[in-house]
Parts: sequence; C-alpha cells; structure tokens
Amino acid sequence: MDSPLIVVNFKTYSQGTGEAAVKIAAACRDVAADAGVTIGVAPQLCDIYRVSSQVDVPVYAQHVDGVSPGSNTGHVMASCVQQAGAVGSLINHSERRLNLADIEASVRAAQAEGMNTIVCTNNIPTTAAAAALNPEYVAVEPPELIGTGVPVSQADPDVVRGSVEAVKRINPDVQVLCGAGISRGEDLTAAMDLGSVGVLLASGIVKAEDPRSALEDLVSQL
Amino acid sequence: MDSPLIVVNFKTYSQGTGEAAVKIAAACRDVAADAGVTIGVAPQLCDIYRVSSQVDVPVYAQHVDGVSPGSNTGHVMASCVQQAGAVGSLINHSERRLNLADIEASVRAAQAEGMNTIVCTNNIPTTAAAAALNPEYVAVEPPELIGTGVPVSQADPDVVRGSVEAVKRINPDVQVLCGAGISRGEDLTAAMDLGSVGVLLASGIVKAEDPRSALEDLVSQL
Amino acid sequence: MDSPLIVVNFKTYSQGTGEAAVKIAAACRDVAADAGVTIGVAPQLCDIYRVSSQVDVPVYAQHVDGVSPGSNTGHVMASCVQQAGAVGSLINHSERRLNLADIEASVRAAQAEGMNTIVCTNNIPTTAAAAALNPEYVAVEPPELIGTGVPVSQADPDVVRGSVEAVKRINPDVQVLCGAGISRGEDLTAAMDLGSVGVLLASGIVKAEDPRSALEDLVSQL
Amino acid sequence: MDSPLIVVNFKTYSQGTGEAAVKIAAACRDVAADAGVTIGVAPQLCDIYRVSSQVDVPVYAQHVDGVSPGSNTGHVMASCVQQAGAVGSLINHSERRLNLADIEASVRAAQAEGMNTIVCTNNIPTTAAAAALNPEYVAVEPPELIGTGVPVSQADPDVVRGSVEAVKRINPDVQVLCGAGISRGEDLTAAMDLGSVGVLLASGIVKAEDPRSALEDLVSQL
Repeated sequence: MDSPLIVVNFKTYSQGTGEAAVKIAAACRDVAADAGVTIGVAPQLCDIYRVSSQVDVPVYAQHVDGVSPGSNTGHVMASCVQQAGAVGSLINHSERRLNLADIEASVRAAQAEGMNTIVCTNNIPTTAAAAALNPEYVAVEPPELIGTGVPVSQADPDVVRGSVEAVKRINPDVQVLCGAGISRGEDLTAAMDLGSVGVLLASGIVKAEDPRSALEDLVSQL
Repeated sequence: MDSPLIVVNFKTYSQGTGEAAVKIAAACRDVAADAGVTIGVAPQLCDIYRVSSQVDVPVYAQHVDGVSPGSNTGHVMASCVQQAGAVGSLINHSERRLNLADIEASVRAAQAEGMNTIVCTNNIPTTAAAAALNPEYVAVEPPELIGTGVPVSQADPDVVRGSVEAVKRINPDVQVLCGAGISRGEDLTAAMDLGSVGVLLASGIVKAEDPRSALEDLVSQL
Repeated sequence: MDSPLIVVNFKTYSQGTGEAAVKIAAACRDVAADAGVTIGVAPQLCDIYRVSSQVDVPVYAQHVDGVSPGSNTGHVMASCVQQAGAVGSLINHSERRLNLADIEASVRAAQAEGMNTIVCTNNIPTTAAAAALNPEYVAVEPPELIGTGVPVSQADPDVVRGSVEAVKRINPDVQVLCGAGISRGEDLTAAMDLGSVGVLLASGIVKAEDPRSALEDLVSQL
Repeated sequence: MDSPLIVVNFKTYSQGTGEAAVKIAAACRDVAADAGVTIGVAPQLCDIYRVSSQVDVPVYAQHVDGVSPGSNTGHVMASCVQQAGAVGSLINHSERRLNLADIEASVRAAQAEGMNTIVCTNNIPTTAAAAALNPEYVAVEPPELIGTGVPVSQADPDVVRGSVEAVKRINPDVQVLCGAGISRGEDLTAAMDLGSVGVLLASGIVKAEDPRSALEDLVSQL
C-alpha cells in the first residue's frame, strides 16, 4: 500500500483558528514524520501565512478563485495564496461551491502557481466531470455524510468505488481522495482498499478532545 | 475639517500582493504619521496576518462572512480575521456582493469581534438601506466610476450629497465614505466638502508608479 | 380593521403546479369574493400566464430580476412577468435571496412596470433596510419558522411589532406583511393586531387537504 | 449531412417577449417545416406556456433548477416547466451559470421529466466535464464571442473541433452544439463541418429586422 495523502480541513472551527491552528498543524507535522506519511492542513485563508511561516507542513487553502491580478476585491487569488505559503488548495468544497467555469479557472490558476488542486465533488457523475478538468486530485464527499462520524467507506462504499472507476476511465492522471465521516485508522485503510489514495477529514481531528492522539489513531493501521 | 478616514483597497493587484503589500502598508503608515491622518489598508485575506504582524497600520479585510464557528469551509469568519490582526472589514464591495441577510450577519459578526464595518453601496437607496443595518461606515461607490480615475466627487457629486443626507435621516450614527475614481488631494477634500468623512481608494495608490508620493499627494491638501 | 392583503405562495409544491395551480387560484378568487378581501396568488414563474389567463385573481411572481431587455438568459425580466399577467412580485424571498444592489434594481424594474413589490426579509434590521428601498410592502418572515405551522405572530410577536415600528420610522409609505407559520384565521387577525396589513402564507393553504376550506378558515375571523 | 438541431434563444430581448415571442416562434415553426429541419425556441420562463399553447414548435426553457417539489420559492422546477409545454432546457448558460452539483441535479431533474438537456459550456475542458454528466447535448459557446456577430466557427474553430473530440472520448452518447456569433447559413454549415450537430443562436434571429428572413437565410445552405 502506497503512502496516503491525508488532508485535515480546519473549516471555521474555533478549535482550528489562529494560534490553535498553528498547534494542530504542528501535531500534523509530528505525527506525519513519525508515521512516514504526508499530512496536509487546510486552515482558514487568514491563517495560511501564520501556519506556513511557523510550521513545516504542507498547507492547503480551503478555497481559491480563478481570478487574475486586477479588480477582484474580496477574492482569493492563487498567487497570493501561494506567496502566503500554500502548496495546494481545495476547490469547490460542498460548503463553498463554484460554478463549472469557475472551477476550471481555479484549477488552471492554482496549477499555474505550481499548486496541487483537490476538486471536491458530491457523487459519481460530478466526480467524473471534475476529473475531466484535470486537477491533481478529486475528493468525493457525499454531503449528507459530512460531519456525521459515519465514514463514507462504510456508509456508501459504492460511491468511492464508482468514483475511482469513473476517474480511471475519464482521466487516469487524476487521483481520488474520499471524505465525509472519516476519523479512525480503519476508515483510512478502508478508503484505500476501495481505491482512493487518501482522505479529506475535518471534525474527527480538529474537534477531537486530543487532536494529536486522534491523528495517531488515524495512521495506526498503515 | 476633521481628520478623514482613508482606506486603501489592495484588491488583487499584483502590486499589492505578498511582500509588495507589506511595502505599501509601510508607506501608508509613514505618510499617515507625517500628515496626522488615519490611513487603513485592505490587503487580500491571505495577506492580513503578514501585513499586520510586520507593519503598525490599521488593517481591514476586503470581505467577511457572517458565519459562526462550524462547517463553513472556504468562508471568512470574523474572529479569524480579527485574530489575524484586522481592525475592520469592507462588506459587500461591488466586486464581492452579498445578499441582504448576509450583509446584516456580516456586520453583526464583525462588530461582535470589535471590528469596524464599512458596508459598500452603489447608489443612494442602497446607501440608505445599508445605514439601517447600523454599520460604522457606509461607503458609496458608483460601480461605473470604479477604476476610471474620474473622481465620484466630480463626476457625480449628487450621489455623495444624497447619500450623506439619506444616512443622516435614517441613522445619524453612521458615517459616509465615498469611493470610485479617487486618487488626488483635491479629490479627497472635495469628497469631504460633500459631507463624507473619508474615502475608499485603490488603483490610484496601489498601481501608482510611486505609491508613497501618490499617498503624499492625497493628504497634501488637508 | 382594514381589509388585509393575503398572498398565497405556491412555492414549488406539486399541489400548486400546472393545472393544480389554476384550481387553487380559483379557490382563492372565490373565497376572496365571498369574504370581501384580497387574496393574491404567487404560482411558479412558468405558471403565471396559465393562471392569469384562466382565473381573475391578482397574480404575483415569486421572483423578479432587475434586468433590462438584453442578454440575460434565464433571468426574469419584469416586463415579461407583467405581460404574462402578474400585478406584483415577491423579491428576495428567503429561498431566493438577492444581493442588496439587485434587490434595489428588482424593485425599480417591477415598479417601472406598474407592479407591486413585496420585499421579503428575515429580521428587524433587514426589514428596516428593505423599507429604505421604497417597495410597496416588506414581508418579514423569520426563516426558522417557515413551514413549521407555528405562526410568527405567536412564536415571535416582537419581530412583527419591531418591524412595523422600524418601517414607520424609516419609510411610513411602506406597509408590513408578515409570514412564516401562518395558516388559520386567528393567525391572520393576530398578525394584524401586531400592526401588519396582511400575511404571506404557503403550505398551510397549498398543502392543505382541502385548500378551499383552509382559505375559508383563514378569512373567518375578519 | 444529417438535419441539424437549431435552438433560438430569446434571452430577455424585448423583441422576443410576450406576444412578440409567439410571433417569432411561429416564424421558426414555418421555416422549420419548409426546410425540413428542427428549430426549437427558448423564450423566457414566463412565456413558455404562452408560446407552447399557441404554436406547435419545440419549446426549451432557458434555465431549470434541480429542485424537487417543496420549499423552493422562485426556483424553476423541471416538472413545472414540462407541464408548461417545454420539451427541453438550456442549463448553465454563460448568463446563468450553476455550480457543478446543481448542473448535475438539473440534468437529472429534467431528464426525469423526459426533457432534453443542453448544458452550455465555455471551453474544451468544461465541455468535457459537462459530457461526463450525460446530458443529451453540450453547447460550447466562448463567452467573448456571444453577441458579437463573429461566428465561433470562424473566430475559433478549434474550440468546436476540440469540444467534439473531447466529448467523443468522454461520452460518445452526447452530441455537441455550438453557439456564439452564429446567424447566417454559412455559419451553420461551418459549425456542422466542424462536427457539431447544430447551433444555439440568439440576437442574429431575434433582433433581426426581419426574423423570418433571417431564419430562411440560416437554413438556406442545408
């Protein structure tokens, strides 16, 4: 089994904001080093620079727009995100959906800055569509399972399997992550057994009583 | 004439991104100190922490959402913006418009963190409506003049006068800024003569060949 | 007590779609005539012409955009709505929110066609803001009560009273409707006792087993 | 050469609103019958019933949402559109873009009512993505050419060729239309020579001094 990509999404949890974001990022760095895996963190936009300048960990933005330099007040420009220290970005998370043309523009803008792109999708057809846009990753997350603690790998393994197959057929260069309800080591290995190369997770780590031990449990079965 | 509030919006200009944002912010701090006025800066979201941690200048966000801690991936939470060092935020800029309920929620969320709110509007009726939401400032900017170099105070003084009157009638606690096309000292004094307490400006400073001397010209008539 | 304005919103209920919309509209017309009140209907956009050409009842659109003739595919132009037979429109319903500039443009566009405008709002500050835009009506509906069957006049009378007061202060030309959870005669009179001039209601009529008798109950206390 | 599909989008042109929509639809019906081709019309939502009940012509909606029966005020439900007489719908037109999950939901909702779906896209990657959603048609229209009178088949033939190839590779069941700047007979045949099965056009017909003769010119080279 190859080493998985794990990305921890801090959402707008208070437990993952400001200095608290730095602390969880440090835990991710330490556990990743001990386990020999890659754990990326996706703090809030305003925390990217704070985290990246203090912790040696792959930082992802939670969102990036496809805008170029210019009159785009309030928008998230890829080159600004990259200069703030991010190595990649989530795009089209179910809590921050974009129209199709904008997803494509965001993927292109982020890739032009050398960033990894993870396009989030909600089912097999949208995963297939996202793969056609040639991001590095597609992350399938049935919205109804997000935040439930019930792992997608258990509640709906077919959506993961079907996504992996659809992506292989449409664009084999793209790799599949899965998310929604993932928190424990067995969820991660189940996700990989279904053909995904990693997971996107959030509350299971960030809102855990002890995020570091939650991370240790997550990687314990690798 | 009271000392005006000047806010420089860096938009997504490359000249105001990353380290360049820090440099323009430092110029704003220096010119403000020399002239005895307040100059705030509104860099991109990912640059707020970088600027605020290096330059002693009032930093504004370009946008803030009304979200609470929780599952709001990619959204801009007021407490995160505040912890990153911002003292206020633009809300509803014409390049990042919000629905009415969200403007109200953003104003409340930012104020709950002790931040100043500047709600941007496009004409007299929307200025009146924004004043009813009780932000600290309303900034009226006719979108057709933004970025033209033709100051609103000259092209359409009635929209400024009318906005000042409407706000006085609806909610005299709110103060009026004006924007669009402002760049020189005479634009600023004209804006104040029309009853506004300050200006929102962008390209005239950030894209100037020499932002520092553009700022010096801006405050030269006070 | 003046005769109230009652507007029945058909939403996208299957019980209020197509020919079923025509039938409920006819019931509204009949009950209104018997009771000497005004009952308007707000069917789906594609049903406006069908209803207005078959039933002599005031028809409202559920939504209208502020667009002018031109390249606005998929948008709802006021003059088209008016030519289809509508006499007014809901604007900014909580299920179809608009940004502030667009609410203002929609109100202006609809009024230019001689249509009544009912701007929907979610709390007292947004009601005050909407009143500043000078529509004919503002309809305050706390979203958390919509569809519950618990009338706003009972669950949160202060939001109605406060809205009426705020509107009186900001723009006494505007009249206040209230909605959310309204279905029975006592809800209507309670709403009017709180200072509103009428109600917006939906499921209580459209999804009733017998819409005609639900309407008869609604007007029974006038 | 197979008989093409021609769809005339009435946008919100005043020349294609209300009774004027009925007249242009009648011209489309007549010219289609004379030439032995299929010409569909896409009037505004509020004109669908008016047109379909008076003219025997395939009527398309300009937009449809993916909503089910329920609390979706102001939304466009597929079953309502279908009951109003439409046989299909544009989805995601560049003037009415949808997020990816909503495009998929709209396609499914329309197909569940037996309607044809035409998903509009702006370049080759988004065309490929849309094809993965399995609509009946994808219509590629570079937004910068819309309304220019310069046909895409001449200004950017590669976007049409590339779209046809991408769709063939991703999902050969989907057929490609092209749009933007199409108005004359030679534009239509050029579009078909590039592999598309038809065209989407608008101002070239609806705003023509004589729509009927513009339509006759359009089909003159078949």
